[in-house]
Amino acid sequence: MIYKEISNFSSDGKELEYLFHPQGIAVVGVSQNPANLGRQFFLPLIQLQYKGNLYPVGLEDSEIAGLKIYKSILDIPEPIDYVICCIPASATPQLVEDCVKKKVKVVQFFTSGFSETGEEEGKELEQKLLDIARRGGVRLIGPNCLGIYCPSQGLTFLNTTPSLARSGQVGFLAQSGGNSRELIEIGSVRGIYYSKGISFGNACDLNESDFLEYFTQDKETKIIGVYIEGVKDGRRFFRALRAAARIKPTIILKGGQTEAGSQAALSHTGSLAGNEIVWQAICQQTGAMLVNDLDEMMDLMLAFSYVKRPRGRRLGVVGFGGGRSVQSADDCERARLSVPSFPPEIRQKLREFTPEAGTSVRNPVDSSPFVFWDPLLFSQTLEIVESYDGVDSLLVYLPMAFAFVDRGEQLIRVQVEAIKDFKAKSRKPLIVALLSGGIPRVLQLDFELERILLDAGIPVYPSLGRAACALSRFVKYYERNLSQPF
Amino acid sequence: MIYKEISNFSSDGKELEYLFHPQGIAVVGVSQNPANLGRQFFLPLIQLQYKGNLYPVGLEDSEIAGLKIYKSILDIPEPIDYVICCIPASATPQLVEDCVKKKVKVVQFFTSGFSETGEEEGKELEQKLLDIARRGGVRLIGPNCLGIYCPSQGLTFLNTTPSLARSGQVGFLAQSGGNSRELIEIGSVRGIYYSKGISFGNACDLNESDFLEYFTQDKETKIIGVYIEGVKDGRRFFRALRAAARIKPTIILKGGQTEAGSQAALSHTGSLAGNEIVWQAICQQTGAMLVNDLDEMMDLMLAFSYVKRPRGRRLGVVGFGGGRSVQSADDCERARLSVPSFPPEIRQKLREFTPEAGTSVRNPVDSSPFVFWDPLLFSQTLEIVESYDGVDSLLVYLPMAFAFVDRGEQLIRVQVEAIKDFKAKSRKPLIVALLSGGIPRVLQLDFELERILLDAGIPVYPSLGRAACALSRFVKYYERNLSQPF
Repeated sequence: MIYKEISNFSSDGKELEYLFHPQGIAVVGVSQNPANLGRQFFLPLIQLQYKGNLYPVGLEDSEIAGLKIYKSILDIPEPIDYVICCIPASATPQLVEDCVKKKVKVVQFFTSGFSETGEEEGKELEQKLLDIARRGGVRLIGPNCLGIYCPSQGLTFLNTTPSLARSGQVGFLAQSGGNSRELIEIGSVRGIYYSKGISFGNACDLNESDFLEYFTQDKETKIIGVYIEGVKDGRRFFRALRAAARIKPTIILKGGQTEAGSQAALSHTGSLAGNEIVWQAICQQTGAMLVNDLDEMMDLMLAFSYVKRPRGRRLGVVGFGGGRSVQSADDCERARLSVPSFPPEIRQKLREFTPEAGTSVRNPVDSSPFVFWDPLLFSQTLEIVESYDGVDSLLVYLPMAFAFVDRGEQLIRVQVEAIKDFKAKSRKPLIVALLSGGIPRVLQLDFELERILLDAGIPVYPSLGRAACALSRFVKYYERNLSQPF
Repeated sequence: MIYKEISNFSSDGKELEYLFHPQGIAVVGVSQNPANLGRQFFLPLIQLQYKGNLYPVGLEDSEIAGLKIYKSILDIPEPIDYVICCIPASATPQLVEDCVKKKVKVVQFFTSGFSETGEEEGKELEQKLLDIARRGGVRLIGPNCLGIYCPSQGLTFLNTTPSLARSGQVGFLAQSGGNSRELIEIGSVRGIYYSKGISFGNACDLNESDFLEYFTQDKETKIIGVYIEGVKDGRRFFRALRAAARIKPTIILKGGQTEAGSQAALSHTGSLAGNEIVWQAICQQTGAMLVNDLDEMMDLMLAFSYVKRPRGRRLGVVGFGGGRSVQSADDCERARLSVPSFPPEIRQKLREFTPEAGTSVRNPVDSSPFVFWDPLLFSQTLEIVESYDGVDSLLVYLPMAFAFVDRGEQLIRVQVEAIKDFKAKSRKPLIVALLSGGIPRVLQLDFELERILLDAGIPVYPSLGRAACALSRFVKYYERNLSQPF
């Protein structure tokens, strides 16, 4: 039964591979006006060096980026696989008719004003597009969405920048264009990179289950992020989610879980959203990880992107500052991680160089400035903590406010280098919390250090609470999926 | 009964007024070495223009900031009220003996190495200080703490900077020096300012109940923040907390609620911490607001500092972006705020200028770019939402990523001005979420806009979830304290 399902979705999913390798793209609704949205879709494709042919289509008798603007897709001499539609809703049926004639494979509608308006007129127009497309063998993405992001192919969204061209191992499908953009934009800062992403709006044709099945079988995708508001076929989605979560960490944000949220989802993508308890049960049964917002989703994507499988929930915590130390222990235990007291032999080793006053070597290690800011003693601390059999992972927190003190910035840089060196030889998972508290004058340094740590393969969190929550769910995933390799 | 209690704590609290008006301060343990911690206590007092006499005491036969370093406080010719002790623990009993002779009122010990070490020796030394002090009529703060912060008097902590000199209406007492510093440092960025603050460490003499009673009766303090790990006299503290919360919003972070956290607290301040459920019950009974970390504490301090009492939990939400809009509704309902659908007449008024496609006027208002970025139409949106009887407060969220688009920064600045103008004539509470997502290139703008909004009396939150949680607890406070004025 299980195998049958997997083989089912695999063939379904694979079928969509062509979406990410279009040979020709037309952007319809382009003009020279800088505020024109078609133009804002078109130019990033050039900036990201889309590998196929690219054609602007619009009413103006002119050029854009040296390319002639065609009046109709039917005037384009070469074949077109993928059409990005940025024209008013009323003109879309004609465009789909043209796409059928042009043998276009898929049309993506940035255009909105369909079923999500709640008006009969919009619903009928959406149905009309679907009817024309189904008859003519054209597939639709959307309407009311941003379409396909695939940095390795130079495929991208409205208004993205060249800095977003880096590929990674996370695939996402998101019913919201804004959320899709945030996953990419904020991801690029936090060190989360994507294999492919799809913003799919109202999902009148290709829907969440199609895309989820695609990502489940896609070899370039190791981790899956899902933002949905409504589901077209509940049984199929449940099966797809179970199959996905069985083999890849699958993180899901369900928009519209509350009464007010569900009404907002109805206006946003015309989705009938389900309630919180139902979705908790679905995720419990499928093994998908339900989160409450995009920050939580990205916190998990980060852990799965950087951290290897830990053996359990026992954490060694190292930092500086008594209040922080208490907070770190409380945050970890609230997240159901354990912070076991070190046995006498570990404490004794730490005490050999850690002064008694104002410190603790019990776990969390609340270090002394003399140890914490000395790269040698600090490394030794980390090594001793790692050497203890009773901890599975290490959490190190750095209070960035110390960058203010005399030579503080220099000290913290040296310390980050020490963490990097430790990481290179350590065997246990390591995560770092850089605690800037949002203070402007340490943020530049914070970003720089975050980048250094990420490049060394160490995920970085902005607070102890978020680090603990992400790590706990990360561990839980493997507790559930015991067959996943260490 | 109630009145008797209030009169009891009032007299107790008032008695400590002298702590904040010392006529002469000696910092003991000062040298010319830049790493010297006594020096790092001494110099900020000069920078913050402490109003009384200031005396460095140390072993060097030299000067600091033009002031002669005395060998002993007994050599100082003028009277001393307040001594800051930065010498090793072993030398502290002699210092307290000298303080008795010198008729010092209070000694604060930055010095650690006492009961918090868990060793008999440390406990005995702490008891010895207390015995000498009690016999001689000297009061003690700490040991293992930062002491007194009172910006209006120029009284401050280790390593603080002149930017922290602004006074406000929040009083805090914190058992952790690091947490005290964070409240001040991060507070100064977020627009939270303090009347007075006390970091009190091990609390061997003056303790959390003394300070809480002081803040309860202090006229300069309107809001109270408490960070404690352990309580010396549970019954007294419960009474003090109940009395405080009855007349002032009192926010409490209890460090060491979990098993691991409580062990860390034992090492940090020698405190025997209680468990989570007990503290939830204490706060339920007293009306104090229990939070999980300093961010949550400051989110609440911010609301109480800026927002007037709302009539209820019904929120009008205005923003831009469909996914965000759904998230805002989910976040508000999860926080038990209500986001009621607008009635037809309100929707119709909004529809007069809000295009149908890609928007919602139901609540949350998911606006169109053409409305959102037009100061006139945006103001009109806010006014229409405010005019609806069915909402008690307004939440506006600004997606900062839009600062990237063509003229985006200019548009968002104009919009912030429109919010300011709206606020000036609006009658309902207004809070703003500036959603930067931590993207470096918008952070500078984010800080600037946050400052403009704060100066206009509008509190700013970094996420929808945190805004919703803070607002909900803020409303709950008034639901419980119906006698508080609107």
